[in-house]
Amino acid sequence: MSQYQDIKESCFEANMKLPQLGLVLFTFGNVSVVDRQKGVFAIKPSGVPYETLKVEDIVIVDFEANGVEGQMRPSSDTKTHAVLYQHWEGIGAIVHTHSTYATAWAQAQMDIPILGTTHADHLTVDVPCAPPMSDEMIKGNYEKETGFQILQDFEKRGYDYKEVEMVLLGNHAPFTWGKTADKAVYNSAVLEEIARMAYLSCTINPQVPRLKDALIDKHYERKHGKNAYYGQE
Amino acid sequence: MSQYQDIKESCFEANMKLPQLGLVLFTFGNVSVVDRQKGVFAIKPSGVPYETLKVEDIVIVDFEANGVEGQMRPSSDTKTHAVLYQHWEGIGAIVHTHSTYATAWAQAQMDIPILGTTHADHLTVDVPCAPPMSDEMIKGNYEKETGFQILQDFEKRGYDYKEVEMVLLGNHAPFTWGKTADKAVYNSAVLEEIARMAYLSCTINPQVPRLKDALIDKHYERKHGKNAYYGQE
Amino acid sequence: MSQYQDIKESCFEANMKLPQLGLVLFTFGNVSVVDRQKGVFAIKPSGVPYETLKVEDIVIVDFEANGVEGQMRPSSDTKTHAVLYQHWEGIGAIVHTHSTYATAWAQAQMDIPILGTTHADHLTVDVPCAPPMSDEMIKGNYEKETGFQILQDFEKRGYDYKEVEMVLLGNHAPFTWGKTADKAVYNSAVLEEIARMAYLSCTINPQVPRLKDALIDKHYERKHGKNAYYGQE
Amino acid sequence: MSQYQDIKESCFEANMKLPQLGLVLFTFGNVSVVDRQKGVFAIKPSGVPYETLKVEDIVIVDFEANGVEGQMRPSSDTKTHAVLYQHWEGIGAIVHTHSTYATAWAQAQMDIPILGTTHADHLTVDVPCAPPMSDEMIKGNYEKETGFQILQDFEKRGYDYKEVEMVLLGNHAPFTWGKTADKAVYNSAVLEEIARMAYLSCTINPQVPRLKDALIDKHYERKHGKNAYYGQE
Repeated sequence: MSQYQDIKESCFEANMKLPQLGLVLFTFGNVSVVDRQKGVFAIKPSGVPYETLKVEDIVIVDFEANGVEGQMRPSSDTKTHAVLYQHWEGIGAIVHTHSTYATAWAQAQMDIPILGTTHADHLTVDVPCAPPMSDEMIKGNYEKETGFQILQDFEKRGYDYKEVEMVLLGNHAPFTWGKTADKAVYNSAVLEEIARMAYLSCTINPQVPRLKDALIDKHYERKHGKNAYYGQE
Repeated sequence: MSQYQDIKESCFEANMKLPQLGLVLFTFGNVSVVDRQKGVFAIKPSGVPYETLKVEDIVIVDFEANGVEGQMRPSSDTKTHAVLYQHWEGIGAIVHTHSTYATAWAQAQMDIPILGTTHADHLTVDVPCAPPMSDEMIKGNYEKETGFQILQDFEKRGYDYKEVEMVLLGNHAPFTWGKTADKAVYNSAVLEEIARMAYLSCTINPQVPRLKDALIDKHYERKHGKNAYYGQE
Repeated sequence: MSQYQDIKESCFEANMKLPQLGLVLFTFGNVSVVDRQKGVFAIKPSGVPYETLKVEDIVIVDFEANGVEGQMRPSSDTKTHAVLYQHWEGIGAIVHTHSTYATAWAQAQMDIPILGTTHADHLTVDVPCAPPMSDEMIKGNYEKETGFQILQDFEKRGYDYKEVEMVLLGNHAPFTWGKTADKAVYNSAVLEEIARMAYLSCTINPQVPRLKDALIDKHYERKHGKNAYYGQE
Repeated sequence: MSQYQDIKESCFEANMKLPQLGLVLFTFGNVSVVDRQKGVFAIKPSGVPYETLKVEDIVIVDFEANGVEGQMRPSSDTKTHAVLYQHWEGIGAIVHTHSTYATAWAQAQMDIPILGTTHADHLTVDVPCAPPMSDEMIKGNYEKETGFQILQDFEKRGYDYKEVEMVLLGNHAPFTWGKTADKAVYNSAVLEEIARMAYLSCTINPQVPRLKDALIDKHYERKHGKNAYYGQE
């Protein structure tokens, strides 16, 4: 049995949740799960349909995206995952989808404005949409540069990846992450729902105001603050 | 067996209907059911997924939201439910969801205009959207003030909670209620459909007129008036 | 066994198709099936959920909507069905739903413009939206007047109910019909899809032109004309 | 056993995927599969519901759309398929649907603009919408002319059917194709998702810019170029 069996299994299970949650069509998505002690992560193989995906198909690579274990070619987005793992040490898993509403905002090159408490329960700022990359970055090491584009956008905005666990890449689609695979997948589903609600609010009322600061703080604090009182922990 | 077994069971069953009706994602919703003689109500525990929820997880609290029975922490919205039960004596159950279209209207801070007989079969006025609370209310006893914000909006509009069994809380999401748990859940599903139809009508025809008064009266009367002739009773 | 067993069964089966086709929420719809030789029609009882509906619940009434057989109260829309059966002798069944997109157009008080061949395969004109009734009609024998409002709108437009088997009632919702129960239900599903496509086309391109006459004629003729070559008959 | 058994079976299986992928209502779609050596193709019979369709119902016709084998009348769109097979020798299968969002764009008579990498992963240009035919073409051999309208539009735009495997026919609906039946069906589902995302992006941001050229080239190349690194081949 593989010494990476645990992350292969959790990676497999997390990938299988994407079609169940309605977040992917065909192979348009992938999840990775990291083992920081071993310096590797598990990721979905490229272009394999979810209906036939098996645990043993999951590929193990290092933080330079070099193959470590597995017969198949890893996801074409592997280098993007690698860059994020390298720079954001608190991340345990990353999810990439082309979920419909989140991708529609990414294509529109717009941040998703914070309009309600559904959004504020999860993050206190607009969902950032990183601008499309420069031609140089695109023509260079594209997937690696995709990771750097995300890092630079967070740096420029002064965002903390532990507080904001999702991003839209302009013209492309969303990435989400979290301490665990469950949380990263949860964030992808939440992002899609936030994106859908904001689409509806903005098209019914183009002058919709952003959520007031007091509500943003309150909802985030009750779920994530020191005295959080949401959930059972 | 608990002396509150009956409301725990009906509360459990009503909660389980929310995902079946497509009204909740993950844990974004809760139902409570009251026992007025015993002065308590049953409510969903906070943050517990519907897939694993069991009857014995349901929490019993009094009208001040103090715990009476149950191992788990009650829903973070419990104080809002408590305020409504205290002031509206005819209510038997309350439902809170973040259903997509109703929440989109709440985020847009707009009443849902009465545009058709689907709406008029259930209420004779626009679905009210209570404005977001003042900063003082938000920073204070937030969930309790949420209940008062709803009460005050109904008072200001001159609405009767027995006639209008639903409200949007601006920037947040809908609450519905009814004499029974079934009716309260039914109202949440009806509200979501009304919200969706009104969204479509308003985006295809921004000048859509409100329903004429004669039709409002007729449809409401045939379902709820003295000589009602809808249904089998 | 009832002498009306055959229309009770086909009425029951046709009603059960409405939730399967996603055309009704709760009890928001009804189908009737006529027996012209016996001068009666079978119709869904009022307010009975589809999950519990049984063949023996179906009610038999005459063309004045008087009860002929059955324990339950017939649909509150029974008089509308009766008027249409009285005046349009070629109709075998009628369907009323509050399907989402068709109802949204009815609420918007707009005809559904003919924009494509999906529409032209079924009718050669815009789907008519009859205007809301006058206050006098509403306050009078409302459901009966609903039938007359539809008749008058067709007369005014010069439409033939055999060529145009669907109508929107302004502020209310759609009615469809056909020679058979299957065809009437089919028309309700087609109308909902036409309504949805037209909504999307009109919101993406508000200047969308109506379908050109040559295409309207061609598509309708190939399906319904003398030399029709669609289908197996 | 028929000498065309293999294409009859793959044609049947491909047709059955259309309702599974949510691309057809009732009988609004058809797939054909060609056998170039025998000079025939297999196609769905006209107007037969997917629920009752059987392998032996599939009809075999030649490239002039003359019947070769089968009891049933072939799809009314058969001549359109025949023209495309005659002129585009690299095509192995053709799919025609009235899928909702793609048809909405066809009705709006608009190309679907290339706005994101989901689109660019499949084609480097806007999805072409061929203009509605002239009255002469419509009144003539309509379905045959439909094929020529597609051919002429591709010629006028300088598009290669091997690079652009989908088209909208203005006022009508989409056609897609591919080397295999699987690929042609896949293209229909991808087109519907691209159409939906573009609808959402354009309605939330009417000034949305087209995807930059560097991104178009990069995404297409990584999936289809000489050094493609997507998938397992």
